[in-house]
Amino acid sequence: MTDFEISILGGTGGPFENSTQCFIIRSTHNDESVRLICVDGGVGLGSIAAMLRLDPNKRIVESLYENEEEPVEKYVDSTVLSQTTRGFSLAVTRHLEGSIVQQTMKLYQNIGEYYITHPHMDHVAGMIMNSPAIYEPLVPSRKYIKGLPFTIGPLKDFIFNDIIWPQLSNKLLGRLDLVTLSSRESHNSLSIPEWNIIPFEVYHGSKVSDLSSQVSSSVYIITNTRTNNSIVVCGDLEKDHEDPNEPRLLCQLWSYLANNIPLKNLKAIVIECSNSLSIDERRLFGHLSSNKLLDELQTLRDKYGSSSGLRDLKIIVSHVKMTYSEKDPRLTILDELRTLAHEIPGLESLIFSIAVQGYTFTV
Amino acid sequence: MTDFEISILGGTGGPFENSTQCFIIRSTHNDESVRLICVDGGVGLGSIAAMLRLDPNKRIVESLYENEEEPVEKYVDSTVLSQTTRGFSLAVTRHLEGSIVQQTMKLYQNIGEYYITHPHMDHVAGMIMNSPAIYEPLVPSRKYIKGLPFTIGPLKDFIFNDIIWPQLSNKLLGRLDLVTLSSRESHNSLSIPEWNIIPFEVYHGSKVSDLSSQVSSSVYIITNTRTNNSIVVCGDLEKDHEDPNEPRLLCQLWSYLANNIPLKNLKAIVIECSNSLSIDERRLFGHLSSNKLLDELQTLRDKYGSSSGLRDLKIIVSHVKMTYSEKDPRLTILDELRTLAHEIPGLESLIFSIAVQGYTFTV
Repeated sequence: MTDFEISILGGTGGPFENSTQCFIIRSTHNDESVRLICVDGGVGLGSIAAMLRLDPNKRIVESLYENEEEPVEKYVDSTVLSQTTRGFSLAVTRHLEGSIVQQTMKLYQNIGEYYITHPHMDHVAGMIMNSPAIYEPLVPSRKYIKGLPFTIGPLKDFIFNDIIWPQLSNKLLGRLDLVTLSSRESHNSLSIPEWNIIPFEVYHGSKVSDLSSQVSSSVYIITNTRTNNSIVVCGDLEKDHEDPNEPRLLCQLWSYLANNIPLKNLKAIVIECSNSLSIDERRLFGHLSSNKLLDELQTLRDKYGSSSGLRDLKIIVSHVKMTYSEKDPRLTILDELRTLAHEIPGLESLIFSIAVQGYTFTV
Repeated sequence: MTDFEISILGGTGGPFENSTQCFIIRSTHNDESVRLICVDGGVGLGSIAAMLRLDPNKRIVESLYENEEEPVEKYVDSTVLSQTTRGFSLAVTRHLEGSIVQQTMKLYQNIGEYYITHPHMDHVAGMIMNSPAIYEPLVPSRKYIKGLPFTIGPLKDFIFNDIIWPQLSNKLLGRLDLVTLSSRESHNSLSIPEWNIIPFEVYHGSKVSDLSSQVSSSVYIITNTRTNNSIVVCGDLEKDHEDPNEPRLLCQLWSYLANNIPLKNLKAIVIECSNSLSIDERRLFGHLSSNKLLDELQTLRDKYGSSSGLRDLKIIVSHVKMTYSEKDPRLTILDELRTLAHEIPGLESLIFSIAVQGYTFTV
């Protein structure tokens, strides 16, 4: 039985501005009322419109490397493919009417909350630029933008400050609320009340201007309280530092998962892998590479301590940086992950896929 | 003889994040070296890649209203059509090689300067998210981001502040320079030395949090000092206020043009018209509507005081807000402008077109 539908509005780590991270997530138990949340908002209406125009039978991915288009099988594991829809699922689109613009704004109206992982532009730009659409007279909406303090503070101070963007979060307007969450505390989703959402703070590199000052990001654990099934959706993150005085936040996340979510209930982890293992370690800038991601998954395996390892856990890889290269870096990274994991006890049967823009994964 | 090539990477006023204002501008006198500047940077690499994939012979516009595609003739005046190219001109693309991603990054490498009209997100988001590409090892670049103080100050304080985006403008990195211009002063373009560029401050509505506090924006006058031909490229702007104590900035701009640029040398004005005349005046929020734009053009006509009015001046309309409506609001506004102008002495032969994404206008 499936629980979660994850539509990839954008799933790369830039530098192309039209494919940055934004996932629309829905409960598959609520086919009648289309209530949606977003994790991150790098893109938005533009990607929704593009997805509504896709031919669901043309199962290709826009690559723009060796070929302009590649078959989706190259990016998504065959065991996941049968549940993978090009564009949105029928449950999301069947209530939509009118032109593509009208359908797009109607779908946007159904987004009740954004859970933002961190305030970097490529995770918030679409959400910000789309926000005037909450005032469209025929399809108005009220939205909540949620995040840990290091996300919501900057959105208030630096974005919705009447300088970078109109202060649409002004209380007198009453349509857009910035809501501060607490790390490692369980929050009920307003849009999908049967979901509990727990944000976890993680680290994401250092400031350019002060290398000793760390940048934070978030991981969201989303649990359906009726079925106890969960997914984990990560923002950008880096491996824990060696410094014994620093908290090992990522290690603590893996412990939390192993202690609180039975492996059979962990339906998928959406996690960044920005770089191929060929990257110079000094140029990771707060991100993972394929070997570093596998290190983390070994830690998770150890925390679970199951004799059969992480079995057929689904890993959906996001935030690959699109580089100037011959081969699509998403295919390079996927190949590295599968090849390396095959040699690591307990990771052999992990199911890796790429979070390809325009597709909906059901887990 | 033509002077300026204006490629429309994005030309709407949102709320769709994938078509916000960004123009690549080139001198038609420099066919050998492809040196480019941008006015605004709402979108960027994503739109460049999309433009490189367009079939130049399929002369359609993505509308997404009554029809998903419409013929370009509906948006661009017939006298301008022959000088309007789908995608980029051959001079820009003929040096590009490799995959679409490689061609896109190579073209991006040729952008030397961004002239930003104001720091609202829909005019800077793409420029910011694309900026890590200046470090692509095989296609590195150095770029200058220029603007008036109310633009460059916020970009420093609120964007490249190591919180919303890494401080890539840090002097130690030496690849991205934020440069403050002075209003009404002539600046030489670094990329295209024969161009003089003059920024003019204009007003763009009030702050939500303080209605008495005005928001500023810019208009750029770009002049080829060899031919004396000019184009005027506007950011968002509103009509002058009635208050006699406030400077009438827009009126001063029209005076400046009439006093300094012979009408025959004024090749085009790219100007916003966010709204149809049906909009409630209280909901203009610092923008123009079609009747307000015509009021401004009448002021310009009066300043020039030519017996034949503004003759066949080319007006390229940008920043139309994409609303929830049956008809494409760009077609509604274009129709209003043409119909109304036809009845106004001296504006009868103005040549109105829409700044349609994906096309290159040569003037």
